[in-house]
Amino acid sequence: MAKKITKKTDSAPRGSTFSKERDEKTLKKLVGLADVIAKRTLSGKEPRLEIPMRTKSNTLWDRKKGVLQMGDATAERELFNLNQAKQFMQTILHTSTIKEFIDANKTSSLRGVFYKAKHTVAGTKENTFDTQDESDPILEDLEVALGTLREELHIFAENRGVMAGNITVIDGGDTIDCRASGKGGHGIPSIVEEDVFQFGKCEAKFVLHVEKGTVWNRFNEDRFWEKNNCILTHGAGQPPRGVRRLLQRLNRELKLPIICVLDCDPWGHYIYSVIKQGSISLAFESSRLAIPEARFLGIRSKDFKECDLSDAVKIELSDNDIKRAKEIAAYPWFADNKAWQKEIDLLLSNGFKMEVEAMITKDISYVTEEYVPQRLKARDWLD
Amino acid sequence: MAKKITKKTDSAPRGSTFSKERDEKTLKKLVGLADVIAKRTLSGKEPRLEIPMRTKSNTLWDRKKGVLQMGDATAERELFNLNQAKQFMQTILHTSTIKEFIDANKTSSLRGVFYKAKHTVAGTKENTFDTQDESDPILEDLEVALGTLREELHIFAENRGVMAGNITVIDGGDTIDCRASGKGGHGIPSIVEEDVFQFGKCEAKFVLHVEKGTVWNRFNEDRFWEKNNCILTHGAGQPPRGVRRLLQRLNRELKLPIICVLDCDPWGHYIYSVIKQGSISLAFESSRLAIPEARFLGIRSKDFKECDLSDAVKIELSDNDIKRAKEIAAYPWFADNKAWQKEIDLLLSNGFKMEVEAMITKDISYVTEEYVPQRLKARDWLD
Repeated sequence: MAKKITKKTDSAPRGSTFSKERDEKTLKKLVGLADVIAKRTLSGKEPRLEIPMRTKSNTLWDRKKGVLQMGDATAERELFNLNQAKQFMQTILHTSTIKEFIDANKTSSLRGVFYKAKHTVAGTKENTFDTQDESDPILEDLEVALGTLREELHIFAENRGVMAGNITVIDGGDTIDCRASGKGGHGIPSIVEEDVFQFGKCEAKFVLHVEKGTVWNRFNEDRFWEKNNCILTHGAGQPPRGVRRLLQRLNRELKLPIICVLDCDPWGHYIYSVIKQGSISLAFESSRLAIPEARFLGIRSKDFKECDLSDAVKIELSDNDIKRAKEIAAYPWFADNKAWQKEIDLLLSNGFKMEVEAMITKDISYVTEEYVPQRLKARDWLD
Repeated sequence: MAKKITKKTDSAPRGSTFSKERDEKTLKKLVGLADVIAKRTLSGKEPRLEIPMRTKSNTLWDRKKGVLQMGDATAERELFNLNQAKQFMQTILHTSTIKEFIDANKTSSLRGVFYKAKHTVAGTKENTFDTQDESDPILEDLEVALGTLREELHIFAENRGVMAGNITVIDGGDTIDCRASGKGGHGIPSIVEEDVFQFGKCEAKFVLHVEKGTVWNRFNEDRFWEKNNCILTHGAGQPPRGVRRLLQRLNRELKLPIICVLDCDPWGHYIYSVIKQGSISLAFESSRLAIPEARFLGIRSKDFKECDLSDAVKIELSDNDIKRAKEIAAYPWFADNKAWQKEIDLLLSNGFKMEVEAMITKDISYVTEEYVPQRLKARDWLD
């Protein structure tokens, strides 16, 4: 086992999430947005914002680079336009809230931003925002308009998921030895930008990402990460942004392959798809969250035969499963991928799905001690 | 700040969850159950099991002790009875699976146990179990029949939630300094029995438990636990068993008050109720999971006026909210509690609920720097 590092670094000042430089850069963008409006207004033109369009038609799949990209289409948002005035006001309100967060050196959630900006407009019965459904898209507009990550606007997502394994991380100034993080593991924070979350010594050669805590427990209890020299993560279902960004940084900066072990069903495929490419509606985030080279090791449709599993593992596909499987097969990054087409075809012709936990029917530790190590050795996965 | 302890203890051997003594005790109970059946059978009587009844009518509220207790009623489960034969067989199957887990020194999830026992009975088309809904109650039967905690049967629940604060814990042999657990915190494992999870140095004077990760982030970012000398936990919604058991141990063994900050709505009240007393259908677990003296600090119905909040925080109660609020008010531990009756009455007469995150309308850190500290100082909470 690697030597335990316990030195506390001082690089990230306590209480700060981002470096002064990054915050100044974000503030400059925010102020720049306001400046454009102010200049237009002072020169007698009507106040107007230009927001890149986040529609499917303005989302392009760059097959060569393997990434989703936004097109050049933009939409205007004018103050003196009955259809746009409210959204114009909402955008400006959120800009002001974010500036307040940055000035105070604090972060909040999407819900927090919504509450912060929600109030009744003086002298009217009109609310600035009625529900969070109105608020979130405005923040997404701001992200694209400013070319920033939501986290840089000091907004955090729910934190779920933990990590353990052969790496030391410096999280908020505390040095965490993930080789000695117990049965619980280290909680993955919602913001893992390099300002606040740095990588220390790392012997791990890859990351094994599983879907759920209960599966993670099995792998951690069998000390899979120690025997196979890796980092073990889970995201409690669909991994939140913090987990995705962490996996991307581990992949880009430490060159670690990200290997996913998920259920053999459309939900497992969807989780993999989001880790790999993100979602079409949030294409602008791809560059900061997507991991095009993430691998899907299993569970595979062929495993029922190949692992000689019993009928006990079969869960019949529902009509909705079949619909979802076909939708996922049509995603641009799967559509021209022969191996994935074959995988989903076999899922559909099998007529049943299988969960990672079903591997226990072979043996308690079959999945950790035989299945995954064998597949890793054979480099048998889907890209 | 307290000195960081980094020594790795050797008391809990790696890979083990429970001490040999505890496992032997559990095994003895399991074998005892089988022995009773074997003896009956060998003496010519029909194979039969006696299982304590987990019905509402067999659940008693001990007002004096403030705990839920099970009555003496039992149900018989016979092999030679068409209505009971399947459940008899299922109970024996699970007993055998659990023995296998203990012998192998490994743990699994409820789903894992279900898969392990699920198969087609040889020579028939009958499955031992069709769905997990059949399997879970059989395990609960075994828990009561044996007088053991599910965890002692080597079954873990989903792990959710993290902790940070002025305590050192020894988790699976690793020493974790929760004063230096970064922005992410230490993941709370699903099994926190003293065999595998011990308390080290602790300066904290209480535990602040919040509902969600996003709220936990606000408190952790403001280093509430450092300024107020406490431990900060969340359970990602309804806290899983590991979090509840950890809170109970912190309360019982370290005498720390457990102070909850949850939403002012029936869901927040229900989470508090489960932390305090558990659920009626799982009364037998109360002694190992319930914390009768847990406190509900807020958000309180009176806070709208008392904190001078704006209309922006109001969320109208739905019909279901009203129904749930009335059901909760009738729980035996709330029914004769005047303060709680008043609390729920005011919630209903207000006609709206409020979330912890709504406190941001006062100021980003109002909840961490004013609201909670003031209420703590005034000892203003519900018991």
